[in-house]
Amino acid sequence: MDFDLIIKNGIIVTASEVLPPNLEIGIKSGKISCIGTSLPSSPNTKVLDAEGAYITPGGVDSHVHLAQKNSPTGDTWETGSRSAIAGGTTTILAFASQPRSETSLFPTLEDYEKKSLDQSYCDYGFHFILTNPTPEILEKELPILAEREGITSVKLYMTYEAMKLNDGEVLRILFACKSLGMTTMIHAESHDMISLIIEGLEKSKNTAPFFHSLARPRIAEDEASYRAISLAELADAPMLIVHMSSDVAISHVRDAQTRLLPIHAETCPHYLFLLSEKIRAEPHDHFSGAKHVCSPPLRHEVKDLDALWKSIANGTFTTFSSDHAPAKYDHPGGKLLGMIDGVPKFSKIPNGLPGVETRMALLFGQTEACKEPEQAKLSLPRFVQLTSTNAAKLYGLDGRKGSIAPGYDADLVIWHPGKTGACTITQPMLHHDIDYTPFEGVDVGNWPRYTILRGKVIYDKAQGIVGEMEYGQYLKRGKGQVLVGKTGNIPRGMVEDERKYWR
Amino acid sequence: MDFDLIIKNGIIVTASEVLPPNLEIGIKSGKISCIGTSLPSSPNTKVLDAEGAYITPGGVDSHVHLAQKNSPTGDTWETGSRSAIAGGTTTILAFASQPRSETSLFPTLEDYEKKSLDQSYCDYGFHFILTNPTPEILEKELPILAEREGITSVKLYMTYEAMKLNDGEVLRILFACKSLGMTTMIHAESHDMISLIIEGLEKSKNTAPFFHSLARPRIAEDEASYRAISLAELADAPMLIVHMSSDVAISHVRDAQTRLLPIHAETCPHYLFLLSEKIRAEPHDHFSGAKHVCSPPLRHEVKDLDALWKSIANGTFTTFSSDHAPAKYDHPGGKLLGMIDGVPKFSKIPNGLPGVETRMALLFGQTEACKEPEQAKLSLPRFVQLTSTNAAKLYGLDGRKGSIAPGYDADLVIWHPGKTGACTITQPMLHHDIDYTPFEGVDVGNWPRYTILRGKVIYDKAQGIVGEMEYGQYLKRGKGQVLVGKTGNIPRGMVEDERKYWR
Amino acid sequence: MDFDLIIKNGIIVTASEVLPPNLEIGIKSGKISCIGTSLPSSPNTKVLDAEGAYITPGGVDSHVHLAQKNSPTGDTWETGSRSAIAGGTTTILAFASQPRSETSLFPTLEDYEKKSLDQSYCDYGFHFILTNPTPEILEKELPILAEREGITSVKLYMTYEAMKLNDGEVLRILFACKSLGMTTMIHAESHDMISLIIEGLEKSKNTAPFFHSLARPRIAEDEASYRAISLAELADAPMLIVHMSSDVAISHVRDAQTRLLPIHAETCPHYLFLLSEKIRAEPHDHFSGAKHVCSPPLRHEVKDLDALWKSIANGTFTTFSSDHAPAKYDHPGGKLLGMIDGVPKFSKIPNGLPGVETRMALLFGQTEACKEPEQAKLSLPRFVQLTSTNAAKLYGLDGRKGSIAPGYDADLVIWHPGKTGACTITQPMLHHDIDYTPFEGVDVGNWPRYTILRGKVIYDKAQGIVGEMEYGQYLKRGKGQVLVGKTGNIPRGMVEDERKYWR
Amino acid sequence: MDFDLIIKNGIIVTASEVLPPNLEIGIKSGKISCIGTSLPSSPNTKVLDAEGAYITPGGVDSHVHLAQKNSPTGDTWETGSRSAIAGGTTTILAFASQPRSETSLFPTLEDYEKKSLDQSYCDYGFHFILTNPTPEILEKELPILAEREGITSVKLYMTYEAMKLNDGEVLRILFACKSLGMTTMIHAESHDMISLIIEGLEKSKNTAPFFHSLARPRIAEDEASYRAISLAELADAPMLIVHMSSDVAISHVRDAQTRLLPIHAETCPHYLFLLSEKIRAEPHDHFSGAKHVCSPPLRHEVKDLDALWKSIANGTFTTFSSDHAPAKYDHPGGKLLGMIDGVPKFSKIPNGLPGVETRMALLFGQTEACKEPEQAKLSLPRFVQLTSTNAAKLYGLDGRKGSIAPGYDADLVIWHPGKTGACTITQPMLHHDIDYTPFEGVDVGNWPRYTILRGKVIYDKAQGIVGEMEYGQYLKRGKGQVLVGKTGNIPRGMVEDERKYWR
Repeated sequence: MDFDLIIKNGIIVTASEVLPPNLEIGIKSGKISCIGTSLPSSPNTKVLDAEGAYITPGGVDSHVHLAQKNSPTGDTWETGSRSAIAGGTTTILAFASQPRSETSLFPTLEDYEKKSLDQSYCDYGFHFILTNPTPEILEKELPILAEREGITSVKLYMTYEAMKLNDGEVLRILFACKSLGMTTMIHAESHDMISLIIEGLEKSKNTAPFFHSLARPRIAEDEASYRAISLAELADAPMLIVHMSSDVAISHVRDAQTRLLPIHAETCPHYLFLLSEKIRAEPHDHFSGAKHVCSPPLRHEVKDLDALWKSIANGTFTTFSSDHAPAKYDHPGGKLLGMIDGVPKFSKIPNGLPGVETRMALLFGQTEACKEPEQAKLSLPRFVQLTSTNAAKLYGLDGRKGSIAPGYDADLVIWHPGKTGACTITQPMLHHDIDYTPFEGVDVGNWPRYTILRGKVIYDKAQGIVGEMEYGQYLKRGKGQVLVGKTGNIPRGMVEDERKYWR
Repeated sequence: MDFDLIIKNGIIVTASEVLPPNLEIGIKSGKISCIGTSLPSSPNTKVLDAEGAYITPGGVDSHVHLAQKNSPTGDTWETGSRSAIAGGTTTILAFASQPRSETSLFPTLEDYEKKSLDQSYCDYGFHFILTNPTPEILEKELPILAEREGITSVKLYMTYEAMKLNDGEVLRILFACKSLGMTTMIHAESHDMISLIIEGLEKSKNTAPFFHSLARPRIAEDEASYRAISLAELADAPMLIVHMSSDVAISHVRDAQTRLLPIHAETCPHYLFLLSEKIRAEPHDHFSGAKHVCSPPLRHEVKDLDALWKSIANGTFTTFSSDHAPAKYDHPGGKLLGMIDGVPKFSKIPNGLPGVETRMALLFGQTEACKEPEQAKLSLPRFVQLTSTNAAKLYGLDGRKGSIAPGYDADLVIWHPGKTGACTITQPMLHHDIDYTPFEGVDVGNWPRYTILRGKVIYDKAQGIVGEMEYGQYLKRGKGQVLVGKTGNIPRGMVEDERKYWR
Repeated sequence: MDFDLIIKNGIIVTASEVLPPNLEIGIKSGKISCIGTSLPSSPNTKVLDAEGAYITPGGVDSHVHLAQKNSPTGDTWETGSRSAIAGGTTTILAFASQPRSETSLFPTLEDYEKKSLDQSYCDYGFHFILTNPTPEILEKELPILAEREGITSVKLYMTYEAMKLNDGEVLRILFACKSLGMTTMIHAESHDMISLIIEGLEKSKNTAPFFHSLARPRIAEDEASYRAISLAELADAPMLIVHMSSDVAISHVRDAQTRLLPIHAETCPHYLFLLSEKIRAEPHDHFSGAKHVCSPPLRHEVKDLDALWKSIANGTFTTFSSDHAPAKYDHPGGKLLGMIDGVPKFSKIPNGLPGVETRMALLFGQTEACKEPEQAKLSLPRFVQLTSTNAAKLYGLDGRKGSIAPGYDADLVIWHPGKTGACTITQPMLHHDIDYTPFEGVDVGNWPRYTILRGKVIYDKAQGIVGEMEYGQYLKRGKGQVLVGKTGNIPRGMVEDERKYWR
Repeated sequence: MDFDLIIKNGIIVTASEVLPPNLEIGIKSGKISCIGTSLPSSPNTKVLDAEGAYITPGGVDSHVHLAQKNSPTGDTWETGSRSAIAGGTTTILAFASQPRSETSLFPTLEDYEKKSLDQSYCDYGFHFILTNPTPEILEKELPILAEREGITSVKLYMTYEAMKLNDGEVLRILFACKSLGMTTMIHAESHDMISLIIEGLEKSKNTAPFFHSLARPRIAEDEASYRAISLAELADAPMLIVHMSSDVAISHVRDAQTRLLPIHAETCPHYLFLLSEKIRAEPHDHFSGAKHVCSPPLRHEVKDLDALWKSIANGTFTTFSSDHAPAKYDHPGGKLLGMIDGVPKFSKIPNGLPGVETRMALLFGQTEACKEPEQAKLSLPRFVQLTSTNAAKLYGLDGRKGSIAPGYDADLVIWHPGKTGACTITQPMLHHDIDYTPFEGVDVGNWPRYTILRGKVIYDKAQGIVGEMEYGQYLKRGKGQVLVGKTGNIPRGMVEDERKYWR
């Protein structure tokens, strides 16, 4: 009972409870050692007074793009992870991406390990993007990734010429991942629909950023999501559909969850807060819309937002991640790649928005901590689930990350007490190395006052970044949990598990 | 008011009514000239007494495979059309199938015209199967097919290695057909799911006919049907999904119809009357299951049948066709193609069942003409819609075929009065050139007593075939009607018709 | 082959077809005797040239209130039926309404027979409104109504203090009607919801006509419709839910129809063409909103209309009737009953709108006869089903009314050819005895040029009413047909038909 | 840091986590004071070794009938609460039931307080059953109940002659409860359907216990549940539907939850484990089926059970309670009330089953603590939610009951380690005062080894009951939380919150 740090006077929020006030958190060797009242302090014990503020688990942002091969000029590991901690995120999961030309994953892995080593302010792990799932990779390399490297999740694309897999490849990966206890993330948009539309838009010279949002209509997401779920049902494998933005697509997930299929869903801040009018507002040929080009694109109507907020509150979404995919706006290697000879060409604009820093505050601002009860869009425990706990469990970090409980890493966000933390998001306050934020001008009801990683304050709103770059540790992850539904279901239409005849 | 033939004493059934008894049908020059009472007869007028029986429009079987290039040994135009008229079908629509290697449709067309010319007992037209939809074909040849040749429908496959199109190709065809007023038929099964399962079954040596039904599970149809509907929604084009067998897939159609999408659906006798137990009944390694190998396969449970019967009655199905795809059973060019070195290999068994002759009687037997009201599975007008009227309208034959009304071709089926027509289906009674019927032993409550084509009796149950082979005429068809929903819908998620920017 | 009247040169529309042009209709003794070409005419034969116009079956308006006991001052049988024929309606079904205090139906019946006898320009029949379903009535009187009087339908109310039945009474009536082959119509709104709201509105002095539409929110219709369907499912009895106005309620019907429950649905012109803004447009305390007070009330948004139009086109609605419930506006016995001491009190305003005359033209104007194909809201055959055929079948008039076919009564509407019939609805053009029309100013693309009842022109747009009051005949009706679904279903959750133990 | 009791070596399960092993729980003055590692013990500290077993929060059984006025001979507070603690339940919420003849709730309350005072082995609170909701009660007495007495929940019946309220009464109560932050529980079965069926069964002499399950078909629950949800939607009030047993009814709840309506659902052990075959197994006229007579009745098919288990796992059910409604079987004041002159009459059999003791073990046995992962029907955190946490939150006991966290009452169940607790339920092992258990012979994978209430072991499997009757305390409860959806929704079909005009 000897603590390095005691945090007093906060209101602890877990994934299921807002605990009674005035509990203390005793931290020893980077871990939460004890939660209780009247914890004994020794001379070596530091004490941090939360002043009655809420304390939530450090954010786990499970969808972050940093310094991938061939990515546009944007954040490095240094600037990206710095931005993360300034926003309350203590763990990020970023993507090591296999180039399609490579038939082994290890060169990519080594490269990515090298890039990130000692370059992160926060703890981190990798997902692997598979673009060429050879039998060798599925049978030999994935087990090594999972067991030796602690990389227990992969991501697949159903779209993008350079990344897309066909349905057979998706199925093979799902079967392989299931047998290894790995989680499959999938970007679900119909490639063929989108390609044909882009071809038509380009033929019609409709290439301004505005048209990006027309090139990827909701129906492309709806169809691909249904297809992805069907493939997962056949494979009896858990899946997470990333960055969902369409209520029809989400209704497919809801139906699947009702039937106990292990289908998880993710959404992102921009789909909850922004509409395509952000792009439309400018003249169609103005390039500034490029700042909001992402895929799926921002949707058109307030009722699209409402549908997503419903799915935040009713439990359909499993995780809320940033999809931080940063590209500088006014930079030839950034969004300007989409300006060809002075003419904007949306199909060449790097996709993605920066958001790792603003994620936590945007969502916290919609809880009853900042809103009157009937106006709040979600509860505080649901906030914790979405920003931290669920990602930790789904991606094999449970027992270490994602909860405020003895035995867990002491990763915490201490918010400002009461209403004192309210502020407006502006580009100058952010710590990324991007020259804009898509959330410029959005009011948030609070902002992290302290970010604590393994017992150490690494961000202090008053002083800024106080952590150090090499403090972030690589996380070998275990097998993921299935958070919704279960495996072991028999696909509809089979009277027994017919898969035994062919697997 | 001078008739070649008067039919007396029948009960006329149309797509909407069972007309009052004892109306007379006056026929002149092959067309229905008049319906009424006390029609005047001249010395040249023949009179046929229906003896109180029902009279329905001659069957229009819109899904018949005959003598396609590379098809297995089965019926010729002669034997297939002979079989059709013996079962009450007076019009068949058969498939001219483009080999993928050919970049023009005309060689196939000429070949198919030659094969059928003067070889058909019934009237006939062609659908075109597209396997290689080049821009030249879509832009130049389809208009010629539609306008000059009266071929106003195409069929696409989402499965089968030799036929399958990708989603982009399907979309391009849908757009092309929409602009021409052509109807697109589509075989919706997920190729990738099925291929992977077949690969696994073969690896496990599970290759008996029995396993065919496991290789194409319902989920493969469910997913592909949803995808096909989504493509049609994006293209704003009418579509018919052929030979549907899964209630989940049908529920997608129902939902689409509720939303007024122009999605039509077809089913076939074998999905309503037969189950996979037909295959399972025999030892797994016995080859006789090959007689029931078709795609989609027969389903497993009685509740699968029930769901289809519901969709027959509630209007979801638009047409009921035979999918007559005949291959002789005990013939090296027939089903035996699936016996390799004495070992059955289901993936090599020619797909398809003979059924053009049994189609009408099987369904008629489930109407209130043959069943007590609460046991009847459909009404007589619905029988007429499904077997004749709807196909005639959908495929551009309205005003000529599919109805008993003045101005229409005098294509009629006169049934046996009362219960006198009940019989059991057996192979010897049939007129095809196939050595089995999958409906062996099924009782039907009636059978066509007379089949009349353009005013001429061509089949007489007492005498057999009395028509002549060269009597059948080729039908140049007009544009099809949209029977469910409408075009002009904006896909969900669009606030205006965004297609204008890219079409 | 000797005709009293031949109608030439029209385009006949039936419930399933637009027949080829230039067919002739031969009429003899009030019935259609023959349809064909080149009909022979004798010196006694009159010939009417349709000039290429569409000919549809005479309208059957199955929901008309005329001169019920205790009804507000409005149309008499004379003025109501006159209005009907001027709008193309040749048959009306009106309501004989049992006062709750009476324990026999016969006094009401006699009274109603007397009121209507020789007072109608069109043919007519009665539904019976049951408000006090004693065992005596259910067991003894209903069979007499059905068999002796040809009254084969009843109507029930789930709301209105003076009329409402509880669920047990509804069930008993459903069982009784089922065994007699009678059709049950039901007004489905939650009485308890509405009563509580009205009480609250009155307490708050919110009593202007405007508030009527708030007093009966859609949820009241949604709940009661679901309840009514459940009762019908338990009783295994056909039902028609009258004047539906809410898309959620209709979706319950759609679901029931999908499951083959025999649930029919009706809607009315005002729910398709008018919104509550008609009431809101005026200051809240202005009384003119009373003109649009009906129950269910007009709904609020364009999307409410859209949903109903979808259900018109997709087949969910069975009938389209006027719910003609006329009360003079500026009359102390009419709408002014709702003006108490100079203060409007919506709960006292007689419910209902006049509409028997405008019904046919309003809907015809939305067919492809008047609109470009993609703008048309329904097809011509669907128009015929909704305005005539389906009501005739459902209410036991098939074989006589509702179709243009030999053997049927020669009840016809001949429209104006081409676009020549377009006009704007205004009060002066109408023939009712009401001092306003709620459809004032609505453009329609056509108007009946001739209305023909049993072979006799009774309305000629050029000359006005040419029929005579006593020409209308009382219709003894037969058993109704079930048009959607079927009886014989077992309620969900039962594994056998458990009803046998308790019925 | 001075503890009365330390529990070591257990695995703590909360509503969101299975915490890392070997944490210790420090208890002081009946409350959990600390959770951590290496807790210091003083000489006064007792230590209890969990031996590696799971520790879950003490059960909160929120649906218990004990010694209500007019209830059949069964458990007293003493025997019922004794039975509760022997099964791991430390808090029960029982029903004070207003006789319809009484216009004040206070006499009932006083009576019930007297009956329970010093008679309970476990902590307890009251719900109030309202059968006569006068304005006086709603406006004056309910606030007193809530604020002075800590009774913050009421229960309503839509069925049973002596209890049923009409929809208007339900609405008024919902509005009143909403304004007081009270939770409304509702028994949702259609009274009118059931009454009519019972009348028919009795007329047919079908009165054996067997027929009870036919008298209350699933459709009665389905309809009433939809109705109840609609009433709650109109009132914008939270609701819990008790003891749900039908998957259609549950699908209505699921849909409501998807739309964020605050609709909670409860189910009970007998609906998950027992089928009506329990009754059918005996000859129809045998009385032993009376042991399984409850309402809603046990359902018929395994697929009914499956549907409920799905809703357990997918989160639709909020609470899992016993509905302990005990009546002795072989006792003239118990089930034998349904034996009239030697003839069984199901409608007189007291409804209800004993189950307070078996509830926790039955559900625990289906978690991954007792089953292989793919066979487990729910996770351990979900078990905790269903048996304890959710009821505590919903009924205003959060912060005190329902969680293992500092500040909470030290109410705990310590299970047997590993598989050592497996046993078979038999009547002799139980502590109720009822002469049978409906779960006779059911195997469970574990049983509570210790039940701890406020830091004191009150049940020890080895020694039996070790607590004392007067130890149980009455719980004044606070306002309940809304656990699903939210208030503040506008009913579908309104464009603004129209309720402001009439509330």
